[in-house]
Amino acid sequence: MVYATGDGVGGEGRLRVGMVGGGRNAFIGAVHRMALRLDDLITLSAGALSADAENARLSGLDLGLPPDRIYADYREMAAREAARPDGIEAVVIVTPNHLHHPVARAFLEAGIDVICDKPLSASLEEARDLVALTRARNLVLAVTLNNTGYPMVRQAREMIRAGEIGDIRVVHASYIQDWLTNPIEADGQKQAEWRTDPARAGASACLADIGVHAHNLALFVTGLELDRVSADLATFVPGRRLDDNAHVLMRFAGGARGVLTASQVAVGNLNNLSLKVYGTKAGLEWAGEMPEFLRFTPYGEPTRLLQRGGPANTDEARRGSRMPGGHPEGYVEGFANLYRDAVELIRARRAGRAPSPAALASTPDVLDGARGIAFIEAAVASSRNDGAWVSTRLL
Amino acid sequence: MVYATGDGVGGEGRLRVGMVGGGRNAFIGAVHRMALRLDDLITLSAGALSADAENARLSGLDLGLPPDRIYADYREMAAREAARPDGIEAVVIVTPNHLHHPVARAFLEAGIDVICDKPLSASLEEARDLVALTRARNLVLAVTLNNTGYPMVRQAREMIRAGEIGDIRVVHASYIQDWLTNPIEADGQKQAEWRTDPARAGASACLADIGVHAHNLALFVTGLELDRVSADLATFVPGRRLDDNAHVLMRFAGGARGVLTASQVAVGNLNNLSLKVYGTKAGLEWAGEMPEFLRFTPYGEPTRLLQRGGPANTDEARRGSRMPGGHPEGYVEGFANLYRDAVELIRARRAGRAPSPAALASTPDVLDGARGIAFIEAAVASSRNDGAWVSTRLL
Amino acid sequence: MVYATGDGVGGEGRLRVGMVGGGRNAFIGAVHRMALRLDDLITLSAGALSADAENARLSGLDLGLPPDRIYADYREMAAREAARPDGIEAVVIVTPNHLHHPVARAFLEAGIDVICDKPLSASLEEARDLVALTRARNLVLAVTLNNTGYPMVRQAREMIRAGEIGDIRVVHASYIQDWLTNPIEADGQKQAEWRTDPARAGASACLADIGVHAHNLALFVTGLELDRVSADLATFVPGRRLDDNAHVLMRFAGGARGVLTASQVAVGNLNNLSLKVYGTKAGLEWAGEMPEFLRFTPYGEPTRLLQRGGPANTDEARRGSRMPGGHPEGYVEGFANLYRDAVELIRARRAGRAPSPAALASTPDVLDGARGIAFIEAAVASSRNDGAWVSTRLL
Amino acid sequence: MVYATGDGVGGEGRLRVGMVGGGRNAFIGAVHRMALRLDDLITLSAGALSADAENARLSGLDLGLPPDRIYADYREMAAREAARPDGIEAVVIVTPNHLHHPVARAFLEAGIDVICDKPLSASLEEARDLVALTRARNLVLAVTLNNTGYPMVRQAREMIRAGEIGDIRVVHASYIQDWLTNPIEADGQKQAEWRTDPARAGASACLADIGVHAHNLALFVTGLELDRVSADLATFVPGRRLDDNAHVLMRFAGGARGVLTASQVAVGNLNNLSLKVYGTKAGLEWAGEMPEFLRFTPYGEPTRLLQRGGPANTDEARRGSRMPGGHPEGYVEGFANLYRDAVELIRARRAGRAPSPAALASTPDVLDGARGIAFIEAAVASSRNDGAWVSTRLL
Repeated sequence: MVYATGDGVGGEGRLRVGMVGGGRNAFIGAVHRMALRLDDLITLSAGALSADAENARLSGLDLGLPPDRIYADYREMAAREAARPDGIEAVVIVTPNHLHHPVARAFLEAGIDVICDKPLSASLEEARDLVALTRARNLVLAVTLNNTGYPMVRQAREMIRAGEIGDIRVVHASYIQDWLTNPIEADGQKQAEWRTDPARAGASACLADIGVHAHNLALFVTGLELDRVSADLATFVPGRRLDDNAHVLMRFAGGARGVLTASQVAVGNLNNLSLKVYGTKAGLEWAGEMPEFLRFTPYGEPTRLLQRGGPANTDEARRGSRMPGGHPEGYVEGFANLYRDAVELIRARRAGRAPSPAALASTPDVLDGARGIAFIEAAVASSRNDGAWVSTRLL
Repeated sequence: MVYATGDGVGGEGRLRVGMVGGGRNAFIGAVHRMALRLDDLITLSAGALSADAENARLSGLDLGLPPDRIYADYREMAAREAARPDGIEAVVIVTPNHLHHPVARAFLEAGIDVICDKPLSASLEEARDLVALTRARNLVLAVTLNNTGYPMVRQAREMIRAGEIGDIRVVHASYIQDWLTNPIEADGQKQAEWRTDPARAGASACLADIGVHAHNLALFVTGLELDRVSADLATFVPGRRLDDNAHVLMRFAGGARGVLTASQVAVGNLNNLSLKVYGTKAGLEWAGEMPEFLRFTPYGEPTRLLQRGGPANTDEARRGSRMPGGHPEGYVEGFANLYRDAVELIRARRAGRAPSPAALASTPDVLDGARGIAFIEAAVASSRNDGAWVSTRLL
Repeated sequence: MVYATGDGVGGEGRLRVGMVGGGRNAFIGAVHRMALRLDDLITLSAGALSADAENARLSGLDLGLPPDRIYADYREMAAREAARPDGIEAVVIVTPNHLHHPVARAFLEAGIDVICDKPLSASLEEARDLVALTRARNLVLAVTLNNTGYPMVRQAREMIRAGEIGDIRVVHASYIQDWLTNPIEADGQKQAEWRTDPARAGASACLADIGVHAHNLALFVTGLELDRVSADLATFVPGRRLDDNAHVLMRFAGGARGVLTASQVAVGNLNNLSLKVYGTKAGLEWAGEMPEFLRFTPYGEPTRLLQRGGPANTDEARRGSRMPGGHPEGYVEGFANLYRDAVELIRARRAGRAPSPAALASTPDVLDGARGIAFIEAAVASSRNDGAWVSTRLL
Repeated sequence: MVYATGDGVGGEGRLRVGMVGGGRNAFIGAVHRMALRLDDLITLSAGALSADAENARLSGLDLGLPPDRIYADYREMAAREAARPDGIEAVVIVTPNHLHHPVARAFLEAGIDVICDKPLSASLEEARDLVALTRARNLVLAVTLNNTGYPMVRQAREMIRAGEIGDIRVVHASYIQDWLTNPIEADGQKQAEWRTDPARAGASACLADIGVHAHNLALFVTGLELDRVSADLATFVPGRRLDDNAHVLMRFAGGARGVLTASQVAVGNLNNLSLKVYGTKAGLEWAGEMPEFLRFTPYGEPTRLLQRGGPANTDEARRGSRMPGGHPEGYVEGFANLYRDAVELIRARRAGRAPSPAALASTPDVLDGARGIAFIEAAVASSRNDGAWVSTRLL
């Protein structure tokens, strides 16, 4: 019964971050703020919380930001914060997808590290640009593909790396919901509006919103490289402009095969994310609505129901835990693990030292983000081409 | 708390059946025998239980068959039984796949109704021949695609027919196991041997053994017609001659989309069959290892956990129940429901009367069997052609 | 993947049994008949299926009994069957509780072995009489406390006997239902009528109907002797004449403590039987509505989810299995295991040989039945005496 | 899909709180700190984090407290903070049980509101003193019986208040763990040491540590008053000075009956808290390791699986939610709901206004805390007196 205390500040003080997006009526920004508060490692110092100036101002006041650090324009924010001696050390981007690239570019060019919500960008071209820019500037760009923060997801990866399931043969990843069962985007539901708008979401709604989570989870846990996909995307809801259901066959480098399903019309499912991995020696199964558990079955032995905080937790599971087992941790705690690691990466970069290998390995970076965009674009292309296999390679 | 008693014999006496296959060391024959005994509607009167004469003899004695009705050759059995005044009224075929067609043909030609294990045959050509012959002779050919016998599966179908889930959009069917994780067919495991042998199993191992169950379950419950498939079959185990894993995209008439996964190398799964159906109004989920339960979620309402024998059971669920809810029924009981209905169909045919509509609707027939073979062959063809969409239509 | 075939008849022929009770409109008789047919070890040869002569006659014809072996009176049946050269070898008693003793007595006195439904009798005095009589006559009296027939229950016992959980400390047994939530006995529901009638049920309704199952399950699995109980019985439904809810504290010889809860007004539960046993080394948990699974947790290790037919099944689990794992077995199959063992005990007695030790150990006998009655009477006495601890010892 | 943002600060600024206990090597203090940070409503301004002066100093620095507000003595802290214009507005007490009373007393006497970890005190005498003092001073004393903060627990209570389950008949509450299976207190495990030490824990270990949670959960959800208990406490681990297992029968005012089990030697359970409530109209079941779900079964209808954030959430469930359904919330989020409500109560008291009725109703207060102590002492007394029924009334 050893666990992290969740108190993080100490000699170094809190990391100063700013936020772009996340104002009143937004959703994911508030989640990021809970996550970054949990361990007390970060202080929110500035924000361009809305493209609407008045909303930006009011939202900043809500959060207790000093008035002079509430910006209506992210470019202005990047410039001014870069110039302040007490300016932000990193920016958190929680806008709709189409703004990820320009905002990230603005801050990277100002020398400021970036923590960006998923998907990385609205197109593969943008994604590649961010890969190049991040490398050229030698900056941190972390993508909050947050399921990688769950302790039992990290344990699954660690077990696979240790060879406990042998060579991977089969990967089944799925993320199904039902909130877009009806055309609520036509009724002014703001979250639905932009997510189903090609101009703001990109080439796909369902894959960009949730499919990338299933894709990233599969790659993170298995360590496999996805080679190509054959996809069947569908739009079931009349009038919808992008897909709301996706069935994708996957082939991985090394021979493993997979299926990824994503749906926003699967009635009865709220955020039903799951991953099943079968290898020559064992199988692993995890589900996002019961994230504290991991099923592990060595071939010929009974299934082990591993529980976070319980017996047989790996180092990574323990590193990502704050509570004793049986006191459930959830979405925010997993999200906070990404923040904890991102703080370490940013601090290390700023200090010119090597980051902790564990934090480095567990943080989805710009390449992981770009792989997600490549996956989306390949699946869209395949589906348009009658399911032809399309490469998902970045280069 | 009303349920069937499970005692069936009465004025009509027991139906006389014979069995082909199912001798010592066989598997599925014994299951059929338990199922046909459960309701006491049937008496096993004759058998050609093995192609090996001595095994056939010993197996017949094991079962208490009269020596003169123990046959070493199914053709002889068909001829002699057809000639007896007290001859069998139906034959049960529980041989390996490649014998289904010749055995069924022999008995149909002798005017004897057939209850045949799945898959219907080893090729679509054979399946079509049985469709034609059954129609020409006006005989019963029931295929023991036994999952259709589970009360909650029948309830799911009845609810869908009643419009409770609206128009179907998405179908996810899966049947995964792990017993072929290693090349046990090379070590003399008899069940594995013939199932992975193209000469006895047909064009596919995994789809013919378990994929057809998932396929049939999906069609039975949804009432949809499968239009075409795009498949990715794989053989993971070195030396294996047929597939041991299948990922199949499905398109149904009317626009629904589906995914079917079947695996015999999914470590940690024994017989994990599941079906998820999502419509415009509601979703339904069922799993074969917990067959007493059915999850039903009308959109915008909480999930209902329907339990066999509990509240809100439909007529068909009640018709297929023997025990009060919470006293679990299982595989054999579901199987016995197929037998109960098959007895009704055979009795009605012999009496020249119309069978009970419920029994007729719930019994997989030669066309359902043939659809399974068409599915297998289309999936194999698609996989060989890089996933091209292939029609699964019978005609 | 080795399992029993479920076909039992062979050289010895089927055991001839008669049945007392179980006519039209009865419940448990039909369950017994399904169970005794499953393995084909038994033939139903005679019956006094109802105290009502006409119902007895019609019920006998329903089941295909020869008219001369359909009796209206169990005493006559005992006398005549004992006198026939092809008379029954055992009797199955499936009457209401108050008839168990006189019927069992009649057949035992006629030298016929008895298979009796639970509870053994309507009073401890009757139970003691049957213990004495059975011993004096050296006959078999098996009590169908049927949960002992589930393979995973037998496995649990076997694991405890092998020392896998160490010294037992805590036992939680529970059986809760909701079918008596309302006073349905006042509306002519026949099953409810006699179960809540002191003249037919005995001193308790809830404990006699379901509490004895939880009690027996706890003793069977743990191997412990129950020393004394402190009980709080309640009657919640207005007008009901016996208890419908029972909370019982238990102390076992050797120091283990326990709680047993039984309720027939626990809305939302159909037949929710469960057992949890915690020892110095490990814990075991089993539930009757998911009988195929057994949770086993060695201290400091992850929980193992043991599945019938899967890895790590013990000899007893395998002996009680007919189907591969993942093809669910249920209530009838467990019940049939009791019949299989009872046949062995009866055959051995008749042949003057020692029975199979496994069958002997797994069959609840007259002493187990009597322990159940002692438990009921002690609990009733304790509850009437404000929860004072009352001994449950037989002697 | 409407949910709270989790961002709380606004016009009023953050509430200033101090903490007593919770220094390095403590457990629950860090949990409180995560909870109070989550919504950004509170700032930690002062602390007497350890009775050891050096540990207090280092722990305060860890948390970034100003050196002049790091105290080695809680009495000094109470005096000085009360005197500062920017002094703390409330104190959080997270010491071992025996210090709850003196620390609470010190701050109440200084006019400072109290948030105290459970159990309220080490004896009923102390508890009564705090009740009197709190009333006399008209101050807030909230007890972090934190399971009341879970949204689905609040929903359960709201449904019962609305009459959805009718009159309550049966209550089963249970909290079982396994961390004290072995005598780890003898090996220097600090958390185990004080919890099993009569001088620091009080009259019971198991009931004071976890039993009070089950007790409070039952009372909070049902709204019933507990009348008396009959208990069987046990100490299984050799050398342990207090109980590690408790079985308690309960009788409630109005006639409901209950059972409460608490164990710290139930191998395989981490923090398995559960509550089952059965009424004349419906049943409700909830479990702390899957806190997002609530099973609700109206009699004669299928079980509803209610999920936090999903359909049919009540006002209270929504008020306690931060995330969309299916993005799991956990222990810290529930704990933070207590803090959110406590802040409201404290602010209202300081402003001389009536607090929000919802916050008032959902916050366990000094009376709730005292009821827990009365329960512990009654159970201990009953167990010592061979299970005699003992009153749990406060007065």
